[in-house]
Parts: sequence; C-alpha cells; structure tokens
Amino acid sequence: MDNYLTYSYEQLKKFCDDAFEKFGFNKEEAGIISDVLLMADLYGIESHGMQRIVVYHMNIAKGRIKVDAKPEVLFETPVSAVIDAKAGMGQVVSHRAMEKAIEKAKKTGMAIVTVKNSNHFGIAGYYAKMACDQGLIGLSTTNTNPIMVPTFGRVAMLGTNPIAIACPAEPYPFFFDAATTVVTRGKLEVYNKLDKPLHEGWAINSTGAGETDAARVLSDIQAHEGGGILPLGGIEEASGSHKGYGWGMVSEIFSAILSGGLTSDKTGSNGHSGICHGFMVIDPKAFGDPEAIKAHLSSYLDDIRNSPKAEGQPRIYTHGEKEVFAMADRMKNGIQVNVNTVAEMRDMAQYLGMDVASYLGAEALTIKGKESTYKKQ
Amino acid sequence: MDNYLTYSYEQLKKFCDDAFEKFGFNKEEAGIISDVLLMADLYGIESHGMQRIVVYHMNIAKGRIKVDAKPEVLFETPVSAVIDAKAGMGQVVSHRAMEKAIEKAKKTGMAIVTVKNSNHFGIAGYYAKMACDQGLIGLSTTNTNPIMVPTFGRVAMLGTNPIAIACPAEPYPFFFDAATTVVTRGKLEVYNKLDKPLHEGWAINSTGAGETDAARVLSDIQAHEGGGILPLGGIEEASGSHKGYGWGMVSEIFSAILSGGLTSDKTGSNGHSGICHGFMVIDPKAFGDPEAIKAHLSSYLDDIRNSPKAEGQPRIYTHGEKEVFAMADRMKNGIQVNVNTVAEMRDMAQYLGMDVASYLGAEALTIKGKESTYKKQ
Repeated sequence: MDNYLTYSYEQLKKFCDDAFEKFGFNKEEAGIISDVLLMADLYGIESHGMQRIVVYHMNIAKGRIKVDAKPEVLFETPVSAVIDAKAGMGQVVSHRAMEKAIEKAKKTGMAIVTVKNSNHFGIAGYYAKMACDQGLIGLSTTNTNPIMVPTFGRVAMLGTNPIAIACPAEPYPFFFDAATTVVTRGKLEVYNKLDKPLHEGWAINSTGAGETDAARVLSDIQAHEGGGILPLGGIEEASGSHKGYGWGMVSEIFSAILSGGLTSDKTGSNGHSGICHGFMVIDPKAFGDPEAIKAHLSSYLDDIRNSPKAEGQPRIYTHGEKEVFAMADRMKNGIQVNVNTVAEMRDMAQYLGMDVASYLGAEALTIKGKESTYKKQ
Repeated sequence: MDNYLTYSYEQLKKFCDDAFEKFGFNKEEAGIISDVLLMADLYGIESHGMQRIVVYHMNIAKGRIKVDAKPEVLFETPVSAVIDAKAGMGQVVSHRAMEKAIEKAKKTGMAIVTVKNSNHFGIAGYYAKMACDQGLIGLSTTNTNPIMVPTFGRVAMLGTNPIAIACPAEPYPFFFDAATTVVTRGKLEVYNKLDKPLHEGWAINSTGAGETDAARVLSDIQAHEGGGILPLGGIEEASGSHKGYGWGMVSEIFSAILSGGLTSDKTGSNGHSGICHGFMVIDPKAFGDPEAIKAHLSSYLDDIRNSPKAEGQPRIYTHGEKEVFAMADRMKNGIQVNVNTVAEMRDMAQYLGMDVASYLGAEALTIKGKESTYKKQ
C-alpha cells in the first residue's frame, strides 16, 4: 500500500508514551493513553488509533482536555461510584473508573462506575477487556458528540454511543464492541474520499430523508443543519430503526443519566466536550464456578463457529476473533499508518519538540503534499 | 374489523385467571400469568397475548410445562442468584426471580438473577417494568428456541433473544423491549398469510441466501433444514448484521451462560424447552438522588420528542410511548382478539370444562370455519 508507512508496535508505543509525557501526563498516564490508542490500531480499528492523535493534540492545545485535571469521586457505594472527570483526558479517567469497578466487583460480585464531564476515551472495548483479562465480565459505554438521529427525526440527538462487552472464553474471549449507529462517521468519511455512494439506511440529510451522498451528509452535519447517521436498523421501523435508537438510549442512561452529566445532544456546550462514560463489571463467581461458566461459553462459541456456513461464506466469526487475528498480524508484520496520519503525528511531535526522524523515520519529514504545517505558538 | 371480537380487559382477565387456576396453578400464580399475557395485549403486542394461549395449553397438556414445578435456588449471593425453574411455567418463575432481584437491589444497589430450565415467559418487558414501577431500573432477557442465524451462517444458533430495559421517567417511563433479531417469527407468519414478500434483510433460506418468500423460510425452519431470521442489522456486516448477532449473544450470556442452562440451539433437547432468562435491577440511589436522575432522563426524553421531525413525519416517539397510548385505548375501547385466537381460547376452555359462553360470549361458539376441534382425552 503506497499511502501507508509501516511501524512496529514498539516504535509507535515509544512515540505515544513520550509524546503524551511531553504534553504533561505522568509516565503511568501516558502509558495508559498510548495503550488504548494502540489497541485500536492492533485490532484493526484504524479510526480510533494513531488517526485520532490530531484530535487529542488539538483539544489538549486548546485546553478542552485538561492535562492536570484531578477527577473527583462525587458519590460512592460498595457497588457504585460517580466520578467527575473535570475535563481530563478520557482514557486516564476511564482506566481509573474501570479499575474501581473491578475492585468493587471483586468484593461484592458486581459494580457500575459512571463518569461525567470527560472527553473521548478511545475504543470502548479497551475497558471491557480490562475486566475480562482478570476473569470478569466487563461492559463499557460512552456517549459522544451528537451524530445519531432518532427514528423519524432529522436532527442528531444521540451519539454513536458504542457499547462493549467482554466475557472470558477460550481460546479467546467474547469481545463485542459496536456503535449503536449503523455505521460510524469514519465510514462516511472513507466513502466520501472514495466518492462512493453511501448504502441506503446509513444516513439522512438535513430534511430527514435518506441520503447516499456522503459529501452532503457530512456538510449538513458540519453546518449543524440537521442530518446525521441512522441507528442500527436503518431508517424504517420495519428494519429495526427504533431498536438501534433504543440501544443508543441505553448507552445514554448508563453514561450521562446515571452520572448526572451531559447527554450527547448537549455535549460541547460548556466549552469542553462533557462526554460521559459508564463501566460495569460482573464477577462470574456470583453465579457459581467461573471455570464452568467459561467452559460453557467457550463450547457455545465453538458450536457457532462450526455451524454450517451460508453458501459462499468460508467461515462464521464469533465476536472478538477478527481482533485477535488482526493483532497477531500486526505484532508480526507491523502496523500500517496512513501517510496523512503520519503527517499529523509529525506535526504534533514538532509542536512537542521531539526529534521526528528518530521516532518516525526520515520519511515522515518528506511526505509529498503533506509538508509540516506546524507553527510555534 | 370483521375478523376480530372485542372483549373488555376485565373479561379477558377473568377468563385467564380462571383458566390457569383450572390448569392447577394457585390463585396468585394464575394472576401473574394472566397479567403478563394481558400486558402484551394491552400494549399492542398481539403475538404475546391471548394468541399465545394455544401454545401454553399444548405445552401444559403434554407435560412440557410442569404446573406443580417447585423452582430451586441453586446458588445465591447478596447481589445474585441462579434458579432452576424445574420446567415450570415461565411467567411464574420469572416473576419470582425478578422479585428476588428487586429485593436484593434495594439492599445492595444492584442484583442479577438468572433462571435455567424454564419455559416461554411472555413479554420480556413485563419483568423490566416490575422494577421500574418501584422506581428502579429493570432489565430482563430470555433466550428462545433457535431462530436467529449468525452472520454468514445458515442454521439458527440463537433465539429471537429479546432484551428489555425500563427506567423511571415522567410522564411515562423509558420502556425498551426488542428482539435482537430484525423481526420476529410472528411477522413472517403475518406476511405469509397476506402472501406479501418479506423485506430484504429479514430472513434467509436453507442455503443461507437472503429470501423474501415467507412460506419458503417458514417451511425451511419447520423442517430444520436451515434458514431463519437475520439479526438486527440484516445479512451484511455493512448494515450491521454482526451487531444484532452480538446483542443476541449478550442475551445468551445473561440467560443461558450465567445460569448454566441450555443455549438457544440446544433448547427442547431434554423433553421440555429448557429456556433460560436473566433479570437485572439497578437502584438509581446507588448513583445519587433518584428524583434528580428521573428528572434528567425525563427532560432528555422530552427534548428528543420535541426535536425537529423528518419531512412527512408527524412525531418522534420515545420508547414505551406507543405502549402507553395502546393501553389507554384498549382499557377504554376493549381488546380486539382475532377470531382464530378466540377459537383457540374456546377449545382450551372446553378442555378445562369452563362455560365458554359466559366467559367469551355465545359468538365464540359459532366462529365460522373454526368449529371446536376439542376432543376429551
């Protein structure tokens, strides 16, 4: 692929660790942020990995993300907590929130921690998997800036509102991480760049009508003229539009409502994003022998994978399998980063006074048509 | 409507209460069963109300549903329990399981109770609403007989696997109750009767290809030849098939996996259905002031309802609104029951030695083309 540069996991990890330390995060915090971003790239969720760095860069530089935020626990019981992130980095407060949920669930059997007044936290699945890696069932969700239009509406009132669930199994866990919209904004942007028509049932324009012109949808969204992405299930109740919209609402309840924070439609209204998250942990021990429960799920997942395939389909996946394969491939063959993204990483490195060539190679300095736009402020 | 007879709520309630007592349930149990069935009819979910009676009748008569089952708590902690329903009536054990979850959540903040070895429990939403009626957040789910084909498969490995969530709000609660399949089998049957082609993305035939011929899909399913209903999101990953399939899996985890019961693909294998359920309750008090949380959600639901509509759409619904309107209409104007269903109710009444005319009117005895088929056994 001509438009990609390939880096090893270690190279990108070192770059991110050092960059976020230079932003003022301590070593542990920087490590968490880069772990979350790199898990996305390793899992093949390109939109949430290095490609996001430019947004974090901008929001930290503009003070929308406060590097020195001290999150505050507003309310707490043995099974729950509400945290005010104080506009801190989403990954940092979310990691702490999930750790708190894990600690509580290990004592009580289950726990929910909600977070308000936060920022983009990366992939939801990262936090669900934190619990799963300790033999627990993890759930995580977040609201986002508004992009999902409710069934029969024409203005975005919910976010993409992903929900992730991870549950221990062999040979790999059940790992389900999905936006409650039918697709994400990243998909619209890809189709726009390729000048391809959107699928029916993905998006609507500012009148509320189905729209396959990606440029129109994106410009309507940007102009706050209405329009947006449809819920999982598309535009009609016949295809289940109200169901995806319902799941989007569940995400709002477990993030914004139970934290007393901003719902998606109101994010950004207080100068920083105000995004909210929810984290839940369930200890399988609360239901008997965790090994038996794990074996039961493993055997079911196996039965599904081995069940007869549709004609022309070589395999049936269970959730999380593709990510396991993607990770193995990238750890072996490296992570391909789009040159536009490399240019953004380079600009950030220059802003931070890092030696670009030693981190990203000399080729990062000479990306054709993507010369550095960085100006010292 | 010519093909319907209209009954008052009280008439149907009396009929069901007495019929289920005649089957051998005690007064309280019969009341629970008829409450669950009638909530479906009141909410306009015809497929799960009186129309289901024929199935319960058959399964009780054949001993698949054990009237005198004594459910057993197999495992219990302050936040959880696992119950073996001992092949009892789904509604009876589910009501007890949700009561147990409510009782625990009121003490601890949250609780999950799972049930194995049960039977069809009616609408999932009934149990979620039990918690909501007490100011709590309720969740309920069940697996079913196999009908959902996993993405890229051709054999049903999951059920319709509805998940319901109810959360207190004014003027009516958020009440979301949805199959994780794109449609239910009932919808296919309706289209078959009307000889209408199914929508694309609803079902596949035994080869795993998309199929719009309802008769073909239904006969394939009945012949266990493969084929079935697609997950919410349809047949392709582009429209989110893997997402509905993921939600179906979440239902299996919270019903069959956490109870050690049968997954949907194996239901029916032990002589009775073996269906599993999951119930969860969260006390908003675990997150602060329940009134503030309720007001926050109410105001968000209001904002969504009042947001601009798509051209040609008169209104935006929030989840549970349609049910509230349907119930008000039916309490006032009566419940319309399809004459075929009335015939089934009559047959059951005769089997039970009830005076049909006094319960269902003389017209129930003279339904054209639907003469009583009941033979004393």
